[in-house]
Amino acid sequence: MRQSELFIKTFKQDPKDEVFPGIKFLRRGGFVGKVGAGIYNYLPLGKRVLDKIEAIVRQGMKELGGVEILMPALQPSENWKKTGRWDGLDILYKIKSRAKQDFALGPTHEEIVVPLVKEFLSSYRDLPVYLYQIQTKFRDEPRARSGLVRAKEFIMKDLYSFHRDEKDMDDYYEKAGEVYKKIFTQIGLKTIQTKASGGTFSKFSDEFQAVSETGEDTVYFCKKCVLGINKEIFEGKCLECGDEKLDEFKTIEVGNIFKLKTKYSEAFDLKIKDADGSFKTVLMGCYGIGISRAMGAVAEIFNDKNGLLWPEGIAPFKFHLLNLSKNAKRAEKIYRDLQNSNIEVLYDDREEKSAGEKLVEADLLGLPYRLVTSDKLKEGEIELRKRGEKEVKIVLIEELLSKNF
Amino acid sequence: MRQSELFIKTFKQDPKDEVFPGIKFLRRGGFVGKVGAGIYNYLPLGKRVLDKIEAIVRQGMKELGGVEILMPALQPSENWKKTGRWDGLDILYKIKSRAKQDFALGPTHEEIVVPLVKEFLSSYRDLPVYLYQIQTKFRDEPRARSGLVRAKEFIMKDLYSFHRDEKDMDDYYEKAGEVYKKIFTQIGLKTIQTKASGGTFSKFSDEFQAVSETGEDTVYFCKKCVLGINKEIFEGKCLECGDEKLDEFKTIEVGNIFKLKTKYSEAFDLKIKDADGSFKTVLMGCYGIGISRAMGAVAEIFNDKNGLLWPEGIAPFKFHLLNLSKNAKRAEKIYRDLQNSNIEVLYDDREEKSAGEKLVEADLLGLPYRLVTSDKLKEGEIELRKRGEKEVKIVLIEELLSKNF
Repeated sequence: MRQSELFIKTFKQDPKDEVFPGIKFLRRGGFVGKVGAGIYNYLPLGKRVLDKIEAIVRQGMKELGGVEILMPALQPSENWKKTGRWDGLDILYKIKSRAKQDFALGPTHEEIVVPLVKEFLSSYRDLPVYLYQIQTKFRDEPRARSGLVRAKEFIMKDLYSFHRDEKDMDDYYEKAGEVYKKIFTQIGLKTIQTKASGGTFSKFSDEFQAVSETGEDTVYFCKKCVLGINKEIFEGKCLECGDEKLDEFKTIEVGNIFKLKTKYSEAFDLKIKDADGSFKTVLMGCYGIGISRAMGAVAEIFNDKNGLLWPEGIAPFKFHLLNLSKNAKRAEKIYRDLQNSNIEVLYDDREEKSAGEKLVEADLLGLPYRLVTSDKLKEGEIELRKRGEKEVKIVLIEELLSKNF
Repeated sequence: MRQSELFIKTFKQDPKDEVFPGIKFLRRGGFVGKVGAGIYNYLPLGKRVLDKIEAIVRQGMKELGGVEILMPALQPSENWKKTGRWDGLDILYKIKSRAKQDFALGPTHEEIVVPLVKEFLSSYRDLPVYLYQIQTKFRDEPRARSGLVRAKEFIMKDLYSFHRDEKDMDDYYEKAGEVYKKIFTQIGLKTIQTKASGGTFSKFSDEFQAVSETGEDTVYFCKKCVLGINKEIFEGKCLECGDEKLDEFKTIEVGNIFKLKTKYSEAFDLKIKDADGSFKTVLMGCYGIGISRAMGAVAEIFNDKNGLLWPEGIAPFKFHLLNLSKNAKRAEKIYRDLQNSNIEVLYDDREEKSAGEKLVEADLLGLPYRLVTSDKLKEGEIELRKRGEKEVKIVLIEELLSKNF
């Protein structure tokens, strides 16, 4: 994509209404724009990051046998009254329609997915069922100061699983944990699988926590067991080996998995007639990944004093091509060649910007590989620098175009 | 995809809470589920139809130079007060947060996109700007009885264009109209480009109206001029040739384009310094396509007494493969071969269903081509029927696998 056709501008100054470095860089780089506290516009580069994360998550859902659906944000109050969460959940946005009907603006979808499955489930033979969506959620957050990490409106992947018995639920839960680790690795995040409160229905839930100085969570990490324990349930020692010398980290929660068991299926009387003729309440699990939050977490974790450092898996473009030569002919040809080889490249073709401005802006945007054409280079050569590294290499363009680069 | 892994069930009876045939079939076929009046779940097959429509629309946006962004549904009341629509728009859902902040739930995004562009626009050289999104919108509809066609929550593509002068706006508006026609043709809808009210700021807007007996709109069509006139502005004769013998049609509006001129840019004081040093208010256009409404319109228009008839461009799958043989070996092989050739196929592999049930259900789901394996056929042969046609052909499987089928 040509930068001249990309609708963004970068800012030299930090925005005054952000606290943390990642979101400051996202704002300065024009990845997102602020509409209000905890409410953002995703601009072209930011939207591309979201798309990349979604593609990785969809692939993971496929591995888990998940089938994609889309449920509404506007949810009748009756559903929330059935589960007792209409009055119990403080972050729930409520709306009254002209016809005096009450709606919740969904922060999660148990209240929708359970009646949905109930309508379509005929027999125990239909189980297990795995339904997921990538959808916009809402939370009435009074203190939304962490950028994309704690927003009032955000994008989530939520998967719900339905099982005939506890063993089936437990096995799927294990498998989901494994796939989650893989998903976060592909996104570029190292996460600590962390035991946390299981609510009223399970002993523990599992959170996927990414270490970040700006994180709102605190996790105690046992190196021996490769296990995290959330501060909210921490009692001074590792839950597994009993070791008391654990490392303390500030973290950002980017995913969680929960055994809901029968909490929501009971509320909606979701039962199946089992093979022996008895009626059984269906068991459930739920599995969340914060898509926009993961983008925010990556920005908080991967930055230096000059800007962002996108991991290759979710960078909006792999290459940033800068023309620093008076004559754009060379850069134009490289741009065309990269495009023709289906290699993702952002091309800074702007004539009004100086070489210095382009280089500073490239560091701010933080694409993985910077390519520079200049008059010093021989035909067929280009300057390559990996973002975050000092070394500048001269490489052959044909090498770049080879699939294995 | 295997039907045994697809989470749907079909229904023999019409749902009692729907009025029109298309939405009845969408419900019976398990494309969508109802959450409340005007609020739907998109189930796996329905979600695939949405994805197909979105892909066609994105291609059209690319032709128009549109850059994709994503704006929030939660919109501060201040923005709506600036344009006078906070009190003026009856379909606007309003929310009050715990901190007593007022938000609108966006039915459209002029109130967000204009301040956004204002933040990023530095010079007349940055114009024109074309930004679009595919996003969920909300309307407080007291009489939501038309299924996906008039919903409280729906998916829209909205494009906003920003121009330096009237000519540039007019030219782009023309071009958008041409691309819109192409988009609807690819979706499978024949639309009448229809003059309608231009609001307080333009003489006319252009609507794209699809003829349907179930439509809520009325359009007068001049065959000579290939022009529609919406009943709301119709004065008994063609606007162009003056002919008074026009055909009257019931229609569903699936898209509209509007010259907003300076209505919203004035409200937010969106100006640029022009080449001659003078300050000019930026001119705007907006261009909508109802994604979920287009799905609803297709369902209303393309059906027969047995079920839906999806146009090939947006069908959830091109082929529906039914195994009617006791031995599934043959069907399994064809399924694998089609999958390996990247041909989209829904495979009815369910053992518990009779041949009759499978055939009836295939008509209800309405995929374009039905493939049937049975014991009567020779090796390498398969039965093919185009949905909506009586003729059953015997074709060679290798023919099917060829790209040109």
